[in-house]
Amino acid sequence: MITTDICIIGAGPVGLFAVFEAGLLKMRCHLIDALPIVGGQLAEIYPQKPIYDIPGAPGIIAEDLVKNLLVQIEEFKPGFTLGERVEFLEKQEDESYIVTTNEGTAVHCKVVVIAAGLGSFEPRKPAVERLEHFEGKGVHYMVKKPEQFRDQHVVLAGGGDSALDWTIFLADIASHVTLVHRGDTFRGAPDSAEKVFELAEKGKINLILQSQVNSLGGNGVLKEVSILGNDKSITTIPTDHFIPLFGLSPKLGPIADWKLGVEKSAVVVNTFDYSTNVERIYAIGDINTYPGKLKLILCGFHEAAIMMQSAFKYVYPDQKLSFKYTTVNGVNAF
Amino acid sequence: MITTDICIIGAGPVGLFAVFEAGLLKMRCHLIDALPIVGGQLAEIYPQKPIYDIPGAPGIIAEDLVKNLLVQIEEFKPGFTLGERVEFLEKQEDESYIVTTNEGTAVHCKVVVIAAGLGSFEPRKPAVERLEHFEGKGVHYMVKKPEQFRDQHVVLAGGGDSALDWTIFLADIASHVTLVHRGDTFRGAPDSAEKVFELAEKGKINLILQSQVNSLGGNGVLKEVSILGNDKSITTIPTDHFIPLFGLSPKLGPIADWKLGVEKSAVVVNTFDYSTNVERIYAIGDINTYPGKLKLILCGFHEAAIMMQSAFKYVYPDQKLSFKYTTVNGVNAF
Repeated sequence: MITTDICIIGAGPVGLFAVFEAGLLKMRCHLIDALPIVGGQLAEIYPQKPIYDIPGAPGIIAEDLVKNLLVQIEEFKPGFTLGERVEFLEKQEDESYIVTTNEGTAVHCKVVVIAAGLGSFEPRKPAVERLEHFEGKGVHYMVKKPEQFRDQHVVLAGGGDSALDWTIFLADIASHVTLVHRGDTFRGAPDSAEKVFELAEKGKINLILQSQVNSLGGNGVLKEVSILGNDKSITTIPTDHFIPLFGLSPKLGPIADWKLGVEKSAVVVNTFDYSTNVERIYAIGDINTYPGKLKLILCGFHEAAIMMQSAFKYVYPDQKLSFKYTTVNGVNAF
Repeated sequence: MITTDICIIGAGPVGLFAVFEAGLLKMRCHLIDALPIVGGQLAEIYPQKPIYDIPGAPGIIAEDLVKNLLVQIEEFKPGFTLGERVEFLEKQEDESYIVTTNEGTAVHCKVVVIAAGLGSFEPRKPAVERLEHFEGKGVHYMVKKPEQFRDQHVVLAGGGDSALDWTIFLADIASHVTLVHRGDTFRGAPDSAEKVFELAEKGKINLILQSQVNSLGGNGVLKEVSILGNDKSITTIPTDHFIPLFGLSPKLGPIADWKLGVEKSAVVVNTFDYSTNVERIYAIGDINTYPGKLKLILCGFHEAAIMMQSAFKYVYPDQKLSFKYTTVNGVNAF
């Protein structure tokens, strides 16, 4: 059993920064994340993309923001349980909680903070025959290691930014890149769409519009995709990999069973302290909702700061919280 | 007459970042600050101090944060009126406002954002005979240009961080440094206090405890200070400068006359959009108050983001605001 003051569910940017705000108040944290790495969406979905709206860090690359946050919280020595998914929450007699993961890891804490971003998000899967059969055998819902596609045949599908960006990126790596899209215009950034059309004109990629992949074939591993045109034509092309990129579908997961107020897959909180309707449970960052909510990382940072002031009373019921500035005495003088 | 969408009163970190959030929504800003420089307290009071709690920028030096914010807002080309103090606010027939400074500069805008930090803050003045008489003739409430004290006699008074920090700093510059403090322990950082005691032991500064400066003397310019001990003893020492450092006292200034809800020198806002009780006037950052308010820069950043979404309707009454991420399409794709 791991014992801590505050169990933070989600190790994305907001969960990480919450450790800092807790640390200033001498509250220890343990973080749990279903992903095997810290950083949440920043690490998993767009590690190399610049983020423009972090105040004072214009255009910071997502993975650098994560690195900086880790530096910021280092001295507070948070615990991490990564690659495990929170399953159960049990209230104890003394009002504390035990949080348990799918692997049986148990964390005993006084306060639970849900900083789970989009929740345990899952890729949206298109209706393609035998799609799940080839998962791990040629079908990928995210591009984690672009190098694995070097000199391979790759078919991508989708019309948004991910599909465009990865088509452009993989054009330089894979030997053959095909992008299949149902429409003939793209939802993604106009710049990227233009670049994709240019690559197709130059023969560097194969662009198949007004079509969709409708079935996969192969013996054990993926060997070909079959493509159905809006005109009912069928084309089969050989490939080593199929990468459908239709976005992520947020799922609250087990949190949905915790009797929290929920609206549109988000946890309802009040803006006084970002607490939920259940005492000692808070929700911060993209997972929460309130009137006027903006799903911005910088808003999650604010929520973390306010929330920890409120949580203090559960961790140190006999102490009065006095507010101090780090700039005056540094982070350890609190 | 300067014409803009949004007039921001205060060019501290929060006022500066508000330009960014406005810029994303294609709203132009003009900033007015009583100080001759941008950055507010960061530039005026502690430019060289590290700030620990800016998320993702651990230990950033205050003036560097200001520089980064200027880079971040550069492309939105805000206007600046610096070194002038806002005096009047006049509502126009079409609900817009004209903001006028003490120098007569007029800014016509659709929305007013008060991001005035501590307000037009003023140094706390100790009860010292003839103090105001010697202002500008040897009495300084802030150290703006340390070099002006080179090889001079300097007397400082106070027991907080400013007094300690400047005593340490000036020990290397001035020919004679005396620190006068009412108590015999210091409120400032223990490290700094220790350093001051060491300097006194080594004879590098003159430390007079349990005493206070009670009157100033000189003919036209300051020549000496008279120091009253808690034991009623009186000492007179020659000096070129007297620097009383007893902190800053926030003053709302003319804003107090604008019929805004005010509590303890702060403007009352609601947390839905950080609007005041007067339509089209918002308040963000240290100048505002609401239940649970934390006077942190990072909270002001959040308030700026939320507030600009709300202000959009006054600038573009016929348009529907759709929320987009900078990471997807960059800052110009909105």
